[in-house]
Amino acid sequence: MATISYILGNLFRPTNWFLASYASSDSDIKALSLDLLSAKGEVSGVTIARQILNQYRMLDEAAKLAYFQFILADMDFNSSDVKTALNAYTDKHDANRYGQFIKSTQPKWRQFFRRLNEAPDATFDLVNMRADLLSLIPSHRELEVIDIDLRDLFLSWFNRGFLMLRPISWSSPAAVLEKIISYEAVHEISSWDDLRRRLEPSDRCCFAFFHPAMPDEPLIFVEVALMDHLPSSVQVILAQDSDVTSVEDMDYAVFYSISNCQKGLAGISFGNALIKTVVEELKHEYPRIKHYLTLSPLPGFTKWLAALTAVEKDGELQDVLTLATDHIGLRKPLAAAYLSLAKRDNGMPVDPVARFHLSNGARIHQLHEDADTSARGMKQSLGMMVNYLYHPDELIENHESFVNDGTIKADKAVKENAQKAKPYLSL
Amino acid sequence: MATISYILGNLFRPTNWFLASYASSDSDIKALSLDLLSAKGEVSGVTIARQILNQYRMLDEAAKLAYFQFILADMDFNSSDVKTALNAYTDKHDANRYGQFIKSTQPKWRQFFRRLNEAPDATFDLVNMRADLLSLIPSHRELEVIDIDLRDLFLSWFNRGFLMLRPISWSSPAAVLEKIISYEAVHEISSWDDLRRRLEPSDRCCFAFFHPAMPDEPLIFVEVALMDHLPSSVQVILAQDSDVTSVEDMDYAVFYSISNCQKGLAGISFGNALIKTVVEELKHEYPRIKHYLTLSPLPGFTKWLAALTAVEKDGELQDVLTLATDHIGLRKPLAAAYLSLAKRDNGMPVDPVARFHLSNGARIHQLHEDADTSARGMKQSLGMMVNYLYHPDELIENHESFVNDGTIKADKAVKENAQKAKPYLSL
Amino acid sequence: MATISYILGNLFRPTNWFLASYASSDSDIKALSLDLLSAKGEVSGVTIARQILNQYRMLDEAAKLAYFQFILADMDFNSSDVKTALNAYTDKHDANRYGQFIKSTQPKWRQFFRRLNEAPDATFDLVNMRADLLSLIPSHRELEVIDIDLRDLFLSWFNRGFLMLRPISWSSPAAVLEKIISYEAVHEISSWDDLRRRLEPSDRCCFAFFHPAMPDEPLIFVEVALMDHLPSSVQVILAQDSDVTSVEDMDYAVFYSISNCQKGLAGISFGNALIKTVVEELKHEYPRIKHYLTLSPLPGFTKWLAALTAVEKDGELQDVLTLATDHIGLRKPLAAAYLSLAKRDNGMPVDPVARFHLSNGARIHQLHEDADTSARGMKQSLGMMVNYLYHPDELIENHESFVNDGTIKADKAVKENAQKAKPYLSL
Amino acid sequence: MATISYILGNLFRPTNWFLASYASSDSDIKALSLDLLSAKGEVSGVTIARQILNQYRMLDEAAKLAYFQFILADMDFNSSDVKTALNAYTDKHDANRYGQFIKSTQPKWRQFFRRLNEAPDATFDLVNMRADLLSLIPSHRELEVIDIDLRDLFLSWFNRGFLMLRPISWSSPAAVLEKIISYEAVHEISSWDDLRRRLEPSDRCCFAFFHPAMPDEPLIFVEVALMDHLPSSVQVILAQDSDVTSVEDMDYAVFYSISNCQKGLAGISFGNALIKTVVEELKHEYPRIKHYLTLSPLPGFTKWLAALTAVEKDGELQDVLTLATDHIGLRKPLAAAYLSLAKRDNGMPVDPVARFHLSNGARIHQLHEDADTSARGMKQSLGMMVNYLYHPDELIENHESFVNDGTIKADKAVKENAQKAKPYLSL
Repeated sequence: MATISYILGNLFRPTNWFLASYASSDSDIKALSLDLLSAKGEVSGVTIARQILNQYRMLDEAAKLAYFQFILADMDFNSSDVKTALNAYTDKHDANRYGQFIKSTQPKWRQFFRRLNEAPDATFDLVNMRADLLSLIPSHRELEVIDIDLRDLFLSWFNRGFLMLRPISWSSPAAVLEKIISYEAVHEISSWDDLRRRLEPSDRCCFAFFHPAMPDEPLIFVEVALMDHLPSSVQVILAQDSDVTSVEDMDYAVFYSISNCQKGLAGISFGNALIKTVVEELKHEYPRIKHYLTLSPLPGFTKWLAALTAVEKDGELQDVLTLATDHIGLRKPLAAAYLSLAKRDNGMPVDPVARFHLSNGARIHQLHEDADTSARGMKQSLGMMVNYLYHPDELIENHESFVNDGTIKADKAVKENAQKAKPYLSL
Repeated sequence: MATISYILGNLFRPTNWFLASYASSDSDIKALSLDLLSAKGEVSGVTIARQILNQYRMLDEAAKLAYFQFILADMDFNSSDVKTALNAYTDKHDANRYGQFIKSTQPKWRQFFRRLNEAPDATFDLVNMRADLLSLIPSHRELEVIDIDLRDLFLSWFNRGFLMLRPISWSSPAAVLEKIISYEAVHEISSWDDLRRRLEPSDRCCFAFFHPAMPDEPLIFVEVALMDHLPSSVQVILAQDSDVTSVEDMDYAVFYSISNCQKGLAGISFGNALIKTVVEELKHEYPRIKHYLTLSPLPGFTKWLAALTAVEKDGELQDVLTLATDHIGLRKPLAAAYLSLAKRDNGMPVDPVARFHLSNGARIHQLHEDADTSARGMKQSLGMMVNYLYHPDELIENHESFVNDGTIKADKAVKENAQKAKPYLSL
Repeated sequence: MATISYILGNLFRPTNWFLASYASSDSDIKALSLDLLSAKGEVSGVTIARQILNQYRMLDEAAKLAYFQFILADMDFNSSDVKTALNAYTDKHDANRYGQFIKSTQPKWRQFFRRLNEAPDATFDLVNMRADLLSLIPSHRELEVIDIDLRDLFLSWFNRGFLMLRPISWSSPAAVLEKIISYEAVHEISSWDDLRRRLEPSDRCCFAFFHPAMPDEPLIFVEVALMDHLPSSVQVILAQDSDVTSVEDMDYAVFYSISNCQKGLAGISFGNALIKTVVEELKHEYPRIKHYLTLSPLPGFTKWLAALTAVEKDGELQDVLTLATDHIGLRKPLAAAYLSLAKRDNGMPVDPVARFHLSNGARIHQLHEDADTSARGMKQSLGMMVNYLYHPDELIENHESFVNDGTIKADKAVKENAQKAKPYLSL
Repeated sequence: MATISYILGNLFRPTNWFLASYASSDSDIKALSLDLLSAKGEVSGVTIARQILNQYRMLDEAAKLAYFQFILADMDFNSSDVKTALNAYTDKHDANRYGQFIKSTQPKWRQFFRRLNEAPDATFDLVNMRADLLSLIPSHRELEVIDIDLRDLFLSWFNRGFLMLRPISWSSPAAVLEKIISYEAVHEISSWDDLRRRLEPSDRCCFAFFHPAMPDEPLIFVEVALMDHLPSSVQVILAQDSDVTSVEDMDYAVFYSISNCQKGLAGISFGNALIKTVVEELKHEYPRIKHYLTLSPLPGFTKWLAALTAVEKDGELQDVLTLATDHIGLRKPLAAAYLSLAKRDNGMPVDPVARFHLSNGARIHQLHEDADTSARGMKQSLGMMVNYLYHPDELIENHESFVNDGTIKADKAVKENAQKAKPYLSL
């Protein structure tokens, strides 16, 4: 049944659709797929596309695999055509030849996915289709070429210029909120009451990006606490009975959880844009807030510690992980080293969260012990958390030096801590 | 100032934007454009893109030409890279090499336009930018290659799955209605009162496609009269004092005007989808309507008559156009011949409106004399108009035979009329 | 934080208010109340009213009592003024004297409550204020005169012409849904999952009346199951794993729960209007549904049985309640008698639910055993439930004969059952 | 046909109505009216009410008069009942007797109008019905007693707490804008282009109050110019080619036109609330604006001048109006005198606009010559206009002294000018 939100939803929605003959056909999905690329597809593409998507949903994993292999086999491009077209264009640079060349490089599946998308509510189906494809690729590498085009198409469709920032609040539709509960990836939401504690108080907020063609499906969301002090742990933020900070006292906007929602949009990055858009939104709404920063996990810290060569301590060879577990005083230095010194072969930090924020131009601001004492927090990072600070004036410079030569910007105290960890590193 | 419609508009709108430092930079547009493609663009792309678009708007025609030439010169792809990548992929079909190949085929301007689109309200600016480009191309053919990518990008962005059908009524925002007035291309709207006559009566309606990123800008619209009889002229439809047909008596939905609104979307076809979506919409709302058809002009009729070889009549050589002008009885046969027999070299009808509707699967239904007695109507087609009938059951078949072998479906009377015209044709 | 629903909410909301000096004053609530009736109130009424309402909320029960007693003492009308004005009007019927008379009959508290309502979001505060008043009246009968005016004011403000019917669905704001959970008075909603089962399936729906000045507060709501058969129990409706009835098979719209939400609106009846509006809504949306009926409790059945004089059975005097408890076959006849024969002194049925539906013009349609096996259902009515049928053609006639002479319309089987119960009644 | 605004409109709208049997009855309107007050009205009131309102609309003036006389005759209260009830209440103050008394004072037409309002979209019909009544009263004074109750009902229904402030912009529905054009009472709007000049520039705005039950009908609206200087004439504001003031430069918010829209709401005052709500709205949106004032006409100035006793000037008796017409230097003093010294018998200013703003607590700020050079402006006030300044800190005090003892607050220059006019006054 409809509600206001539903009616509103429809205002976003591409169209009200009344497809005459949805269920009529029992044609095979492969036959339908070829029809969609034929003259029939030009007249009745929308109806055929809807039938394909409906049938696709019913397929089991094996049938999905077979279907993608059919696409791979029957809808590829022809590389000798490309060569001919490229040579023609190289001979003479005119638009016609260029057009022929571009056309020759496009596999038929590109056109196929575009036509599929013309059906009502198809975009979400296509996102889920790509999620299936991505899960099949590790065991069927040959399918990866399909994804290269699909991803390129999604990069166009989910261009940041088309995304809508929407606040998520206790007045949001339950149908959206239940997705927030299920997609939260960092600090699990245990119940509707837990969710409510994160949304309803006037010093908490949450924002998500949506795409107009998927109005009920958040793409990514961020949870924010507006505080009068820099919180030393996530427990402080998630506490049940905390006082509400009044608008006049808000100094810090703490981004304490960012979660991607759609597996089918892997590799289409929204996080950087979301953080910056939310910062602009909050600046406008709460001009007094001075500091925009995250409270972030160090997801690979424990694993990294475990992989370190044992060090000599008190005359014995000792595990660094065991030492860090036993001696709280060691955690900060080791965490600082983990974030700022531990690098992959390509010079980027080992920690994925650090890679993300540093690449956005943020700096490592402060480390906190006992900051995430949940089971997962203790297991992944011995309870350590870190703030990445987004300072408008240094974002570009930080980003450039990080991207160009791997320079990591960090507060002095963090750097000093990293130095203290040196004896434990076999770097 | 905001209004409800504005607030609503914002719900569609990608985001509320508060761009810190819009006007700050006086950098050259070319320098900014290169910045947008650099690391700076990754961090502050939205702000830079907005500056580029603002500066672009201020350029005069000569400066716009220079700017496109700069894009052409500095952002093309490298065809020897393509060749290398293609060879590598031909040697071994793996996703990595395919990815390299695809990447090599994409000019930098593709990425550039995508980043431009990330700015607030950029999409409409880009549509206008393409309108400029299209107007420059006739005298600067070299720029056409840019348009090939831009058009491909627009095909993705304006995929029918993203379009919203919105009714246009007397309750629509004035800001949208004034665009309807100015975009109407078939039967001019002379005033707000004239517009009102077309929108307010309960037996008239109008629908437009919108894109979520351009919520105030119709892309294409169609005007419909719901009638108890097949009207013999457009004057009947546009008459001031006509009685309103009651819902029970509505038998015919007459699409009497379809207008594209955006020059920058030339070649991105919306008409077919619009007609079919509106038919579905009306079927749902008015289940009693039986006939869906157009009342369409024959825009090239007079010109075609003038180009016919003179025929012998009453012992003299006479102009066919003069004959048709003098003898009303000749017009129907000649019009039938014009629509169904006059072909271009590629076998398609000479008349552009006929090409459009026949390609959609419609048939030529009925011809009307004195059906558009406006100055334009008389000049273009001696007042003749024609109905194209959209019959759900024959759309696919009609389309296929039209596309495959140029077969034109027409009512028997039309065919017979075409035969009567044979003596006047030197075909 | 705002959301779409919130923004939308604002469109309903009387205004965006930015009251300069809300909290500034620490004036006494009584002084403020007199100010509101003075010249000050004409200029700054909105601000003063808001302060009064804010202060009122902080009062404890004793202070609220004192406050109402202050209103009673200081804002009454003057009965000798009334007499004078009435005499003047009786002498000469002119508008001026009539105006004087009407004015003289209005206590100052009437004007006072009107001015209070001018403050932002005041209406909900006033509804809650009346809830307080109603809870005080039983022990302070003198306050009842205030309520007579307040109720009259509410009858004007909550005129059915101002109410909005809004569907409640799983896409409704969580802030509204949690109220549905807490207000459900008939069949308790145990969790969000339970709520979801009642809202999300396409054969279930729920509608509520809202007032534009209290957009987040339902006034009354009804839950409906759309079914292909007449359900024999509420368990069938609330079952977790039931199949969804398809639109083509829907024959019955079963109103299985109606709950009032606002204690402060006691005596302002919305139920009759809600049922009839929802019937119209469903008729329009689901033209195939033939039967509109309730599945209703018999809340006083057990109590009534217990109060019956014991009857001789098997040679012994036996409790009728015990007999009905032991012998399921007795329940239907006794329930039929309870609904159709048991009357209050004024000739109206003893059962409040029966009074409500019969007065709306419905008839008693069918009785069901084991139809509500919840603890409450067994306790109140030995598990019995009943359908009241709303048949459009007989509503007026049924209502008139019920109101005029207490005639109760019932199906033949119900009447026959009632006859069978006669031996157990000492009527 | 529907549009977004329409859909939105529906969210406000009390309900979607599908009244089964609208047109069915051809009963006489009087018979229907009595039905509405009977038991039938309780069951089918909404349908009957709709029929009455539809039939009422068709009546000509004579029939309307007859209908109001029927209401007067058949639905009055009974004054002997009132007396009995009042005596009973005077004997013993209990709620029951008070209730009886209140009931006895209410004519049946009160209940009748309430029931009428329950029909869909009835409120606007009732407003128009009162407009008819008000136009009949001057020649049929006996009907005025009906209006006393109707006005009281409207005071409840149109309580400021229920009104919605909505900005009117170039994005507002055309259906609303055409009402703005037709209701503008101060400075005529000559065309859609003229309207656009008043709404579209970013330094112009317009706000209206709406009632939720009449979502397409403005009740009152105000036009505002946001300026960097105090304009010396309305021509400056309405000029076609004026530069747009940027947000940083806005110092003055000039309310240059306030128009009531509904004749049927005469005597229900919205102007004071509208001005103050808009001031709050603008303060929030444009915190830099310092001065809130009107640019107002002096509608009775010329008439007042003409009524002054002639004065001796240059040895001759001369008309003051002629003098003021000939000597521009005399206008300011005379206008100052007209506004601040010319009083009615009750001590209130002669000028109705002055009464309104002074009663709201504004002060007379500044006088302008040649400030409205339109034909009407010259005729009514020799082109003079005046600013009333709304200074938050003095509103209450000004209002109180104005209401209590007629004190008029004015700037020093105005007072001095008034003194200069003394020789021309025979006061």
